[in-house]
Amino acid sequence: MASSNGTRLDQGKTPTGLSSDYRFPASRKVYTPGRLHPDVRVPHREIALTPTHIHNSDRTEENPPLRVYDTSGPYTDPAVTIDVRQGLARLRESWVHGRQGATYEEAEPSYRPIAGHSDTGLPMPPKRKALRGSGLVTQLQQARAGIITPEMEYIGVRENQGRDRSQSAGQHPGHSFGAAIPEVITPEFVRDEVARGRAIIPANINHPESEPMIIGRNFLVKINANIGNSAVTSSIEEEVEKMTWATRWGADTVMDLSTGKNIHETREWILRNSPVPIGTVPIYQALEKVGGKAEELTWEIYRDTLIEQAEQGVDYFTVHAGVLLRYVPLTAKRMTGIVSRGGSIMAKWCLAHHKESFLYTHFREICEIMAAYDVSFSLGDGLRPGSIADANDAAQFAELETQGELTRIAWEHGCQVMNEGPGHIPMHMIKENMDKQLEWCKEAPFYTLGPLTTDIAPGYDHITSAIGAAMIGWYGCAMLCYVTPKEHLGLPNKKDVKDGVIAYKIAAHAADLAKGHPGAQAWDDAISKARFEFRWEDQFHLALDPETAEQFHDETLPQEGAKIAHFCSMCGPHFCSMKITQDVRDYAHKLEMAKAPLQEDVAAGLEEKAREFREQGGEIYQ
Amino acid sequence: MASSNGTRLDQGKTPTGLSSDYRFPASRKVYTPGRLHPDVRVPHREIALTPTHIHNSDRTEENPPLRVYDTSGPYTDPAVTIDVRQGLARLRESWVHGRQGATYEEAEPSYRPIAGHSDTGLPMPPKRKALRGSGLVTQLQQARAGIITPEMEYIGVRENQGRDRSQSAGQHPGHSFGAAIPEVITPEFVRDEVARGRAIIPANINHPESEPMIIGRNFLVKINANIGNSAVTSSIEEEVEKMTWATRWGADTVMDLSTGKNIHETREWILRNSPVPIGTVPIYQALEKVGGKAEELTWEIYRDTLIEQAEQGVDYFTVHAGVLLRYVPLTAKRMTGIVSRGGSIMAKWCLAHHKESFLYTHFREICEIMAAYDVSFSLGDGLRPGSIADANDAAQFAELETQGELTRIAWEHGCQVMNEGPGHIPMHMIKENMDKQLEWCKEAPFYTLGPLTTDIAPGYDHITSAIGAAMIGWYGCAMLCYVTPKEHLGLPNKKDVKDGVIAYKIAAHAADLAKGHPGAQAWDDAISKARFEFRWEDQFHLALDPETAEQFHDETLPQEGAKIAHFCSMCGPHFCSMKITQDVRDYAHKLEMAKAPLQEDVAAGLEEKAREFREQGGEIYQ
Repeated sequence: MASSNGTRLDQGKTPTGLSSDYRFPASRKVYTPGRLHPDVRVPHREIALTPTHIHNSDRTEENPPLRVYDTSGPYTDPAVTIDVRQGLARLRESWVHGRQGATYEEAEPSYRPIAGHSDTGLPMPPKRKALRGSGLVTQLQQARAGIITPEMEYIGVRENQGRDRSQSAGQHPGHSFGAAIPEVITPEFVRDEVARGRAIIPANINHPESEPMIIGRNFLVKINANIGNSAVTSSIEEEVEKMTWATRWGADTVMDLSTGKNIHETREWILRNSPVPIGTVPIYQALEKVGGKAEELTWEIYRDTLIEQAEQGVDYFTVHAGVLLRYVPLTAKRMTGIVSRGGSIMAKWCLAHHKESFLYTHFREICEIMAAYDVSFSLGDGLRPGSIADANDAAQFAELETQGELTRIAWEHGCQVMNEGPGHIPMHMIKENMDKQLEWCKEAPFYTLGPLTTDIAPGYDHITSAIGAAMIGWYGCAMLCYVTPKEHLGLPNKKDVKDGVIAYKIAAHAADLAKGHPGAQAWDDAISKARFEFRWEDQFHLALDPETAEQFHDETLPQEGAKIAHFCSMCGPHFCSMKITQDVRDYAHKLEMAKAPLQEDVAAGLEEKAREFREQGGEIYQ
Repeated sequence: MASSNGTRLDQGKTPTGLSSDYRFPASRKVYTPGRLHPDVRVPHREIALTPTHIHNSDRTEENPPLRVYDTSGPYTDPAVTIDVRQGLARLRESWVHGRQGATYEEAEPSYRPIAGHSDTGLPMPPKRKALRGSGLVTQLQQARAGIITPEMEYIGVRENQGRDRSQSAGQHPGHSFGAAIPEVITPEFVRDEVARGRAIIPANINHPESEPMIIGRNFLVKINANIGNSAVTSSIEEEVEKMTWATRWGADTVMDLSTGKNIHETREWILRNSPVPIGTVPIYQALEKVGGKAEELTWEIYRDTLIEQAEQGVDYFTVHAGVLLRYVPLTAKRMTGIVSRGGSIMAKWCLAHHKESFLYTHFREICEIMAAYDVSFSLGDGLRPGSIADANDAAQFAELETQGELTRIAWEHGCQVMNEGPGHIPMHMIKENMDKQLEWCKEAPFYTLGPLTTDIAPGYDHITSAIGAAMIGWYGCAMLCYVTPKEHLGLPNKKDVKDGVIAYKIAAHAADLAKGHPGAQAWDDAISKARFEFRWEDQFHLALDPETAEQFHDETLPQEGAKIAHFCSMCGPHFCSMKITQDVRDYAHKLEMAKAPLQEDVAAGLEEKAREFREQGGEIYQ
């Protein structure tokens, strides 16, 4: 594959307006062009590796660079000048306009600030018009029409991570529970999966800044990071910074769950600067518009909020349309009731009016709005369990069945759909969730929060939930919503966001390995080879978090020399298992050279070799 | 159950000679006496809870205290004066001497310091004689003879955690993969499991300070923490402190993996102060005696080391007797060769001499030594994989089969045995390890290191491995050896030890829940109820790590008032899903009172109730 724009990123330069340096050591941004769509340029991060020194010789052997999936966007491209007040380049603008079978109206955004709701003192980004489409607007409609969009080709290249068949040949066969992952992801495969509803490409026509990505069981497992302001703390700059920070560490999508003031303005800044799809829960903003009183919500207020956010470019909406009136009393005897905010709001509305939820009764109108902007559905799980005690109960599964019904309706309208899932589930009850979702929602992508596998460790719920997330990812879940260490306790700060993202990158990658995703093991193999060969710098550079890996190493052995030393602090210089292994390898090689059969009863014949080995000192590295 | 010595531990007082306060907030140490053996006094930690305020009333409802397993030993008992230079009280001394069918010789310890190997400047603990037994010395021999030892009764009480049948009635049925966990652990059940070899009680007759505990598939999943000095850093005081620190957070056993100088002295201090069983890998010290040259090891040096450590009171020995000469070349083409230190040493020895390992050829003599002191075997996995690439390969499984053979030989000699397992294994290949171990080693307890489910996250291997540990614990693994964030990078400090222990307590408890261990869910239920009822202090006190939970909460809402507030920082005071849920619950209660059928077609009849709800403001907490 061709590369261009390859500049090393290890010099360190802070993008304008943001406080962090987002580039990774020994890494460069490489772009691969499309074939069907020549203006497609797909970024990957390429990690340079040092050569292996062949022991007892002066020779070295090259280690090819490793190409990895890159969610960080232009922030890690030194050729790009970032100005958060201008927003990112509009990568997909011409693709949207060139979409076959789609027509667009262009209009001023319908949003008008509510008096007293905008007091940030920050200017809004430059004004732009909003698109609204008709015809074959959504990726699903395009896919059904047999069209491979530029987004689909982009994703095909992106998912392959520069590998070819040979790279995945050596890895363990996976156990994918019936997923259908091909050896190589082609643009046609992407189209087909989208057409079947088994994958979605969340890409609002008004968010042209985003880099296309896909969520589906037959692709790499994705992760989402939640950010958001709140009535208690936070600012717009912090929120934009949280977004770029989360994507730097690997968040594939970001949900803006702001609930305080300035929801619109916060979102605008995030969208204009986000290289990843942005999801929201529109009912939060609708609730703000009625002063926080759930019972005063109306369909019209909600509809206008959907349009407002669709015009801004939100890529997927969580819609809790499966919280039906008759399900609400099923939660009354729960240990922890209804813990989803959206679910609680709708339950309260249903009870106050004793009517079916307007999200359910107006669902087809919602679909029409979603289709006009290609906003994907994330059908919410408003009745998800909030504790181990409430896992897999009647309320939860009743809603999941309704999610299945709504999935089919959304598909009728050409909308892309995924389904949200729990929550708090003990390990042995996780698979039932995946199995029921696959069956009832006809293989639409599943998107779960964790699940947390125990309730007893507040402060460590990134770990309690990474266990469940890894397992459900293996079983077929397409995207894992992260949980930070602050879950149940407070608002995540930057460190918490990073810790949550890293824990979930681990879970997602562990799931990719278990599913046998082609090429997934290449990363593990590269770092393990570096580890075995004492290429310390390479081991750091290949780590999910290079800075922490190097810092932890240096705490024990801060001397620069230790990084090229053939030992590590765990064993000390005279006692290293990896060093001994090298002796074993040399010895086995000698045996092979001598074609000596390896059985105990021929020990006598090998005794001479053993003596020779001892006489040489039995050591390689003197 | 009766309790005595119950003193609240929340005043905070540092045990003599150690820098940390080991007591937990709102917790007291309670002791339950034995029935068969009246001098048995089994400690638990009892966490006091505040009452629930019944809303819209002045009434409160008591929440019973939660009793949890307590590995912290006398350090958390304010009635005990700790003097690390004297060591802990000899709890089991009279039980050892009173053992039916056993006779003992008492002698001066055989150990003599090696010149230049003792330069700590620390005095040795007060001298004592070493016991060596014959007859029915081991817990296995006692169990086979139908004897319920005090240790067995102690364990029965300890494992039940003060619960009765009613407490576990409400929990999810588990999926235990054929384990046979009873509703209540009786002393007779403990005896029977030990007699069958399905569980072990690591309790050297020379370590009377230890509090009896059990490792077996039908008991609570246990965790081990490794500590140890090294040629590069650390001191004896640090090692003792690491041990007490690890047990404070929940380590059920501690392995002393020291490899530098002062191995004997370090171990002596640890043993005399340890309330948990101590494991070692004797080959490390034997290697030190031959100046680090593996090929100079002899059976005699190793044997003397076993005796030296058995006399000190080490409770279990890792013995890599399954690393056979013919298996060594099977590792030559691995990605990461042999990563076990013990495995590497023995492989090197075998190759240097081209002879079968002396651990294998002298295995029956080893058994005789182990039986004389009741040291349990932890049959080492010297050929465990060190990378995802090497998982479940021929070398690994060849050794596991030999572990099975050795298990049966050890049982013939009356020795208690568990088997060590990997290592680095992708999720979908974990279960094969458990299944083969159960079959080949005839249900002897399995004791695994992790396994790590991916190699790409150095700095976070407590998480990559907690995923695998939780899963293999669920499948039947009896003890999980922790991995700290420093794995592969450096020596763990205090924070790393704590992080590793907490991650593994999570994994072990998640496994207990999934297996359906009776009463396991009581802890989750207690904390979830506290969470739902906004009993913040109770939520902190019930957390695995109360300090971190409270500190994280206070970062966002430091005001003291926020801890009794009916909201949290995630949503703010006007937007709380749990508050809304309470409304739902009240409403459902009203419906039930009115015996109103809950179907949409009777909505009209309920409209009046809905209006009434709205008119009352639709809020409970105004």
